[in-house]
Amino acid sequence: MVSYKVDFEPVGRRGECQAEQSILDCSRKLGVGIVSICGGEGLFFCCKIQILSGTVSEPTSIEKKHFSSQELEEGHRLACQTYPTSNLKIRVPAESLEAPQRTQVEGMEIEVSPEPPVRTFKVKLKPPSLSDLRADSERLLESLESKNLISSGSIIDIDVLRNLSSLLRSCDWEVKVSVRDNEIVAISTGSSRQLGLAVDVGTTKVAGYLIDLDSGKTLANKGVMNHQISYGEDVISRMASAKRKPEEAVRMKELGVEVLNELASDLSATVKARPEDIVEAVVVGNTAMHHLLLHLPVGQLALSPYIPVINEAMDIKARDAGLQIAAGSYIHMLPNIAGFVGGDHVAMLLATEAWKAEDVVLALDIGTNTEVCLVSNGEMTSVSCASGPAFEGAHIKNGMRAASGAIEHLRIIDDKVEYQTIGEVPPVGLCGSGILDSLAQLYLTGVVDESGRMNNDHPRVRPYGKSREFVLVGEEERNGDPAITITQHDVRELQLAKGAIRAGIQLLLEDKGLNQSDIDRVIIAGAFGTYIDISSALTIGMLPVLPVDRFQQVGNAAGMGAKLALISKSKRVEAQEIARRVSYIELASDPRFTQMFAQANYLGLYKIIKGRREKIK
Amino acid sequence: MVSYKVDFEPVGRRGECQAEQSILDCSRKLGVGIVSICGGEGLFFCCKIQILSGTVSEPTSIEKKHFSSQELEEGHRLACQTYPTSNLKIRVPAESLEAPQRTQVEGMEIEVSPEPPVRTFKVKLKPPSLSDLRADSERLLESLESKNLISSGSIIDIDVLRNLSSLLRSCDWEVKVSVRDNEIVAISTGSSRQLGLAVDVGTTKVAGYLIDLDSGKTLANKGVMNHQISYGEDVISRMASAKRKPEEAVRMKELGVEVLNELASDLSATVKARPEDIVEAVVVGNTAMHHLLLHLPVGQLALSPYIPVINEAMDIKARDAGLQIAAGSYIHMLPNIAGFVGGDHVAMLLATEAWKAEDVVLALDIGTNTEVCLVSNGEMTSVSCASGPAFEGAHIKNGMRAASGAIEHLRIIDDKVEYQTIGEVPPVGLCGSGILDSLAQLYLTGVVDESGRMNNDHPRVRPYGKSREFVLVGEEERNGDPAITITQHDVRELQLAKGAIRAGIQLLLEDKGLNQSDIDRVIIAGAFGTYIDISSALTIGMLPVLPVDRFQQVGNAAGMGAKLALISKSKRVEAQEIARRVSYIELASDPRFTQMFAQANYLGLYKIIKGRREKIK
Repeated sequence: MVSYKVDFEPVGRRGECQAEQSILDCSRKLGVGIVSICGGEGLFFCCKIQILSGTVSEPTSIEKKHFSSQELEEGHRLACQTYPTSNLKIRVPAESLEAPQRTQVEGMEIEVSPEPPVRTFKVKLKPPSLSDLRADSERLLESLESKNLISSGSIIDIDVLRNLSSLLRSCDWEVKVSVRDNEIVAISTGSSRQLGLAVDVGTTKVAGYLIDLDSGKTLANKGVMNHQISYGEDVISRMASAKRKPEEAVRMKELGVEVLNELASDLSATVKARPEDIVEAVVVGNTAMHHLLLHLPVGQLALSPYIPVINEAMDIKARDAGLQIAAGSYIHMLPNIAGFVGGDHVAMLLATEAWKAEDVVLALDIGTNTEVCLVSNGEMTSVSCASGPAFEGAHIKNGMRAASGAIEHLRIIDDKVEYQTIGEVPPVGLCGSGILDSLAQLYLTGVVDESGRMNNDHPRVRPYGKSREFVLVGEEERNGDPAITITQHDVRELQLAKGAIRAGIQLLLEDKGLNQSDIDRVIIAGAFGTYIDISSALTIGMLPVLPVDRFQQVGNAAGMGAKLALISKSKRVEAQEIARRVSYIELASDPRFTQMFAQANYLGLYKIIKGRREKIK
Repeated sequence: MVSYKVDFEPVGRRGECQAEQSILDCSRKLGVGIVSICGGEGLFFCCKIQILSGTVSEPTSIEKKHFSSQELEEGHRLACQTYPTSNLKIRVPAESLEAPQRTQVEGMEIEVSPEPPVRTFKVKLKPPSLSDLRADSERLLESLESKNLISSGSIIDIDVLRNLSSLLRSCDWEVKVSVRDNEIVAISTGSSRQLGLAVDVGTTKVAGYLIDLDSGKTLANKGVMNHQISYGEDVISRMASAKRKPEEAVRMKELGVEVLNELASDLSATVKARPEDIVEAVVVGNTAMHHLLLHLPVGQLALSPYIPVINEAMDIKARDAGLQIAAGSYIHMLPNIAGFVGGDHVAMLLATEAWKAEDVVLALDIGTNTEVCLVSNGEMTSVSCASGPAFEGAHIKNGMRAASGAIEHLRIIDDKVEYQTIGEVPPVGLCGSGILDSLAQLYLTGVVDESGRMNNDHPRVRPYGKSREFVLVGEEERNGDPAITITQHDVRELQLAKGAIRAGIQLLLEDKGLNQSDIDRVIIAGAFGTYIDISSALTIGMLPVLPVDRFQQVGNAAGMGAKLALISKSKRVEAQEIARRVSYIELASDPRFTQMFAQANYLGLYKIIKGRREKIK
C-alpha cells in the first residue's frame, strides 16, 4: 500500500496518507479539524485547503466548478476531492478550521437550592484487627449505616471496590464517599471536591459547565466544537454516515466522548481538580446527538416516522459511555421528546421556565436544527425545523464560524458597507449574525426584493457565474484577496433556513388557532440567537412581527437546563414532566407545512393567516 | 532487543522469546500451559521442559540440584531458570502440561423448584406509525407493563438498547425479553433459549455448568484447568504475583475471565446455542479466586489479618467482569466468609444442606486450600487449612495431575506393588489418590513409621541423594525411563498437607468441646475427595477415626451450590444467611493450632484430646 507523508499547516499536524485516502479522510485520522459540511461528498463550498508543496490528483469537475483556474493553479482544492500522489505540505485556511472560534456558554443563571443526586460524606473507620476481621466493604457500609447516612442494603460500585482497600490503607482509614441513591459511586481522600459536569452537546458546538455540587455554583465553563462535525454539519448527514458504515458510528461515538472527556479534563484543571473528582454528569442534546453519543442506532431515527430508540431519561454508568470521571459515577441523560426534539429542548424549557408560563410564549432554540415550542393555556406543542447550517456560516459562499475576522454586524448605506468584525481584525468572511444583517440590509436597500431576487441596479452587484453577487468587501479592500460577497445562491439558502423556522412557528400558531399578535413573549435561546439583531430577523420575515420588547435573548438555555438537572433532583423530575407533556408535530408529515413554507420564504414584514400572507407596512 | 524463535512441542505453539525472558515467561505470553508451582521461583520440581534443539543459558544451582548431570545433558531444564541464547525447539512433557486431565464436575443433583432471577417473556409489538411515534424502548416497556409482566419504572440495559431497534425491525416486532428485577437484561429472537451458567472456580480446576433456567436442568458441564496456574499453584503465590506487579494482577484477571468465556462458549455450543443466550451467571470460588477474577486488590488479603475487599454477595454486570454473555446480564458472586473461606465453601454448605443439619456434621472441601466446617447445635464454625497442592500432585517428585497414566490406586504386597492408572496405560506418575494410597501402604507395611521416617529394610527402599526413596515402578518396568518413587521428602510434604487438615478439624472440635466420636457425619466434597480411598485417609491420620459409613463423598458440591444459586432466588437468600451465620477461626493467629499441628503430623489411627495424641489400636 503506497502512502505519503503529509504536513498540515498552520496546525502543524504530520502523518501518513495512503494513496487511496482523500486528504479529508487523512485529516480526520490525524485529528485535524477540517470543516466538512456534507460528509465528504463535495457538494458545497467546504473543506477548502491549499496544497503548498507536492503533487495531488487532478481537480474533479466539482472542484472546477468551485475554483477559478487561477485558484486551482495556486493549489486551492477541496480536501474531500483530493488524493495525494507525493509527500505533501498543506495549508488549512482559517475558514476551514473547526477551531478556535467563539462559542456560547453563557446563559441566564437561575437560582435553585441544590438538591444534588450525589451526596458526599467524610468517614473515619476503625482499622481491622484480629478481633475485627470484617471486609473493607462491610466496614465502610456499616459505619455509614450506623450514622444513618445510607440505607441498609447499599452497595459499592465494582470500580470503586477495586480502589477501596489501597485507598483506605493509604489515608489512615479516613475517606470521603460519594453516595447516589443506595450506591457508593466514588471514594477519595479527604481533600477532594465534589464536582459535577453539565454538558450541552449541540450539533455544531458543545458547551461544558463544571459545577460545585454542594453550592450549585458554576466553577468554570468552556465551549468547544463538536468533533463529529467532520462527518457532516447537520444531523441528517451524520446519521447517514453512521447508518452507512458501522465503524463510522463507532468513530462518531468516540469523537463525541472525546469532547466530553476533554471538557472534564480541561474544566477540572482550571480549578486544580481532577476528572475523577466529578461524581455526576448531565448531558443534553438533540435526539441524534443523544443517540450518536451513546452509540445507539440511528437508522430508524433517520427515516420516517423517525423513531428514537429511547425517549425516557437515562442514568447510565459513565464508563458504559466511555466518560472518564469518578469510578462508579453516572451520566444522567435528559429525556427526549421525539426524533427531532431532544433533551436540549427539554432543558431549554426547564431553564427558561417557559413550561410554567401562563401567558402565550414562543420559545425557540435556533441552531442547525431549530426547535420551537408554543406554550399556551398550559399546553406545550413543539416542532423541529431543519433550518440547516446556513446560520452557522455553512453553504454560504463566504460564510464562516463566529471566529476572529468574521463580520458579525453590517449596514449598507447607499453604496457603502459598514461592518464590524469579531476581534476587530480585517474581515475574512461572514458569521451567522453578519449573514442575517446582510440579507436584511439587501432587502431594505431594495437590492433584493421580497421574493429574494437580486436586482442588477446597485453598483455593488456584479455577475457571478450565470447569476449575481453583492460585493460586501471588495478585492481592493482586501489587498487583492478574493472579495467577500453575498451571492444570489446565498440569498436562496438563507430564505430556506429562515423560511423553515417561520413556517414552523406559523404552523404551531395555526394548530392552536392563534395569531402572531397573540404571542406575549418570544424566548430566543442558542448561541446564534444571542448575537442576532432582532430587527434584522424581523426584516427578513424570520420571526413573527411583534414589538421588540416582547423578544428575550437568553443565551445557552439548554446548557443552563443541564446545570439545573445536575444540581437538583426536583429539576430532573420537572424535566421528565416537560418531556411527557410536550405534544410534538412532525412537520415532514404535516400537509399544512408545505403551504406555510412557501409563504414563509418571502422577505419583509408580514403575517400569515390561514396560509395567506398579508404584508405589514 | 535480541529475540529468538521458540517452538513448544507437542502443543505446537510458536513465537518469539526475548533474550532476557525466561522460557516460562515466554510460555505464558504464548499461552502454553506450563505448570509452575511457585510462580517462577524455581523452588520445587515444576515447569520441567526439555530443550530439543538450540542453545540456552547455563544450568543454575537450583537446576543442578533437581537434575542429574545426565538429565541436564539431555536438555532437561526448569522453564523458569532457563533463558534462550538461540532459536529453540522445546518439549513440554505431559506432567508439565496443564491439560488435559480429569477434572471433577459431577456432584449429587439436588431437586429444587426453579425460581430464576431472570424471567423471559415473548412479546409482539405494534409497529410505529405516523400516529404512534413512541420510541422503541417505551413501546416495549409499555407493552410489558400493560400485561403486568414488569413493574412501572423498569429500564432497559444500555447494551440491550444498542441492539433493540434493529432486532425489533428484523424480526417483525416479535421478541423474547429477559427481565431481571426491574431491568431488561437481554432481548433475542423468538427461537433462543434461556440459559444460565454456574461456575466453580477452584485454585486448580474450574467446573462449568450450563443450565436451562426454566426447568433447572443441567444441559452440559465441563471441567477445565484454571489458566492462572502458570502464576503459581496455590493462592499465596498467585496473590504474591498480583501484589508484586499490577500487570500480573491484570493478566491473572484476564486468564480467569478467559476460562469463563471458554466455558460459556464451549458449553453453549454443545447445545447449539450461543454465549449470548446465557442471561445470568453465578460464580463461586475461594476469596482469592473471587478477588483475582474481579480484579479486586489482594495485597491486604495476603497479609495478616487477611482482610477481603468484600464478603457480601455481589451482582455485577457481566461486562464489568469481562464475561461475554447476554448484553445486559449479571454475574452473581456468592458471598465470602473470610479471607480464606470463600463463596465456594458457602456453596458447598448450601448444596449439602450441612448448614441445616441437626446432628453433628463435619463438612470438608479438600483442595489446595481445604475448608472445613463443623456444624453442631445449629452453629457453624469454619477454618481454612493450607493443605497445599501436594494432593494435586505438586511438590511430589513423581506427582502429577489426574491425567492419563497417573497411578490413582496402589497396594504394596510384600515386595510387590500393584497399581491402577487412569486410562489403563503405562504409569507416568502419581496423582492425588495414588499418593495418598502410597503413603498409607508405606505406613501399613512398616516402611514408614508413625513419625514419617522411612526405614531402610525394604528391598524397594534405596538411597536418593542424602536421603531415601521407595521405588513404586522401577526403571526396568519403564523400559529404562526414570523410576516412579516416593521419596522421604515426599512423605514429609504429605505429612504437612494432611496434618494441616487434621489439625484444622481437631481445633474445630476442641473449640466446641467435642470429641471426634461425637461426629455423626463427615461430608467430603471436592474432586480429590471423590477419588480418595477413605480407609487410606484414615490410615495416615488425615481424618478423624470413625466408622466408614459415616463418611459421605459428594463430589463437586461447590459447583452444585453454584447451580442452586443460579436457578433459585431463595437459594441466594439462604447462601447469604449461611455466610452471615458461619463463625470463622483464623488458624494462623490461633495459638492452639501450632500444638494441634505438631500432633496431627503423625501417621496412623489416633485421636487427639486436649492436644494429646492417643493411639487407637
